[in-house]
Amino acid sequence: MSTSPSNQPERRARLGDLSEEEVLRIILPLMAVPDERVLVGPGDDAAVMSAGDGRFVTSTDASMRNIDWRDDWSSGDEVGRKIVAQNLADVAAMGAVPAGLLVTLLAGADTEIAWVEDLARGIGESCLEAGCPVLGGDLGGAPAGVVVLSVTSFGDLQGRAPVLRSGAQRGDVVAVAGSLGRSGAGLALLHNAPSDLSAKKAAQELIDLHRVPRPPLAAGPRAAEAGAHALIDISDGLIRDAGRVASASGVRVSLFSEQLAADVDAISAVWGRTKALEMVLTGGEEHALLAFFPPNISLPDGFRRIGEVTVGTGVTVDGERRQGGGWDHFGG
Amino acid sequence: MSTSPSNQPERRARLGDLSEEEVLRIILPLMAVPDERVLVGPGDDAAVMSAGDGRFVTSTDASMRNIDWRDDWSSGDEVGRKIVAQNLADVAAMGAVPAGLLVTLLAGADTEIAWVEDLARGIGESCLEAGCPVLGGDLGGAPAGVVVLSVTSFGDLQGRAPVLRSGAQRGDVVAVAGSLGRSGAGLALLHNAPSDLSAKKAAQELIDLHRVPRPPLAAGPRAAEAGAHALIDISDGLIRDAGRVASASGVRVSLFSEQLAADVDAISAVWGRTKALEMVLTGGEEHALLAFFPPNISLPDGFRRIGEVTVGTGVTVDGERRQGGGWDHFGG
Repeated sequence: MSTSPSNQPERRARLGDLSEEEVLRIILPLMAVPDERVLVGPGDDAAVMSAGDGRFVTSTDASMRNIDWRDDWSSGDEVGRKIVAQNLADVAAMGAVPAGLLVTLLAGADTEIAWVEDLARGIGESCLEAGCPVLGGDLGGAPAGVVVLSVTSFGDLQGRAPVLRSGAQRGDVVAVAGSLGRSGAGLALLHNAPSDLSAKKAAQELIDLHRVPRPPLAAGPRAAEAGAHALIDISDGLIRDAGRVASASGVRVSLFSEQLAADVDAISAVWGRTKALEMVLTGGEEHALLAFFPPNISLPDGFRRIGEVTVGTGVTVDGERRQGGGWDHFGG
Repeated sequence: MSTSPSNQPERRARLGDLSEEEVLRIILPLMAVPDERVLVGPGDDAAVMSAGDGRFVTSTDASMRNIDWRDDWSSGDEVGRKIVAQNLADVAAMGAVPAGLLVTLLAGADTEIAWVEDLARGIGESCLEAGCPVLGGDLGGAPAGVVVLSVTSFGDLQGRAPVLRSGAQRGDVVAVAGSLGRSGAGLALLHNAPSDLSAKKAAQELIDLHRVPRPPLAAGPRAAEAGAHALIDISDGLIRDAGRVASASGVRVSLFSEQLAADVDAISAVWGRTKALEMVLTGGEEHALLAFFPPNISLPDGFRRIGEVTVGTGVTVDGERRQGGGWDHFGG
């Protein structure tokens, strides 16, 4: 007979069992990405970064358990990879390359250390893939059950002008890099999969992309080099984010469903064509890049045409005015 | 008889009544600090900042309702001022001047708009005082009752080397700029004021400083210019933060209670001498700057001597070894 209590579940270590410094000693090595641009890294009052061309791009994006993710749908690793993708997509949407990240974690003392390690590993591996050092962050408490992640990202324009939302012009070609609607289609599957689901492999791909979006980060700087007039990442849905460019630029964005056929096809095996088109138009959290190019250039690698810029306001699909859809944080 | 329901409390507007864009339209103007270093401000995918000397300093610090503040003790304005002070103190503790701020607010739909406006006003006014533009941020939802603030700060070293925690040397003078122990003494009053409290004015000053710390931001760059070997802001208590420098520099920090007499005096009218000394040694959230100067220089404006660097490890007070105290986020 064994003396070990193997029939009892082992109590897994929680944040409240360790000091802040012990937690940092576990997670910082998991997020170490050596980079000579980092002049002072984690561990002091602040980090110091060299700014390649005398400027830096910065953005920030936060997530909260049970609002932005569910632990029964996403692992810590996936939550970490997703928040890095979201943040670096904002940097790419200015035409910049990733230059660094700050990571803040506020979590209840009941949070499992193993989950925090998994999170840090996902952040670290995504940053390594993107060539993006983790410069530091903040670690703090929260009420039991609450977990908050807040990330700030940095980018380097490498001498290029930033590509804003406000530069789209009449006649511009509207083009997208990266997939559309799949993250939203995957989320819909997690909420409520069709009972007669036959396309299991396609469905799993949609769910995977919802858990870990794959923004085409290199396409941002490529669009800037090619002379894009405007650039945005699609975080809240194609119509909503195209509408932001329309509004900032004082133009109309005219989309054509025929040019979205490949995006619709990838989803229609699971959800049917009508729902699939709606998901392509309004699904968020995919972080494709939407660019507006002058009509006389050939589109850079990875971009495909989905519409054009015309006189007017707002967004149309096949000539019909479309509004809203997509995601609003307060649902107003 | 009036037809207005004046005996019924008016339902005050909540975040859930507005869209994200409507909330931004209210709060962004309250945080506008014009600054020519901001090349792209709030409203695009990311901000773009010029980096004065080709580098930038960055740090991040978050706060959560009912963990880091209580609404019955602090107004939104005070919460906003405090998080700006905390973040800019980290920048000053590298020897840098404030250059910018990103602000993230995650809040439940039940959060009152009036509170959010008050918060934004406090952040905006503190940033204006510090000459620090708000570059952007993130706005997101949270479960009912939850409010999270996450701020990232930027600083400009103006060509100076950053002053780290690791540079203290045997023989250095230990000096402090800003007050000590008062924030902790104020917090203790909020928790449990002595019933025979006579020094009401002194007590109110302590509480005010707990609500809104006043870090001596300009003393950081002054210390750097004067040749400080090491610099840290006291966020978690004098002994704990001095211990961080001792550990990073491989030295002992020897403090003398006699040299802390002025700090003790300011608190002892309220709490008595014994408790007052303990508060000066371990009280956090005051964000005084602790600097380590070579012995042959005269201390820059605002700094007073409180000890010296000797051979050994850790922190002593009047020759006796002291450990811990102060604040650990997970209480481990």
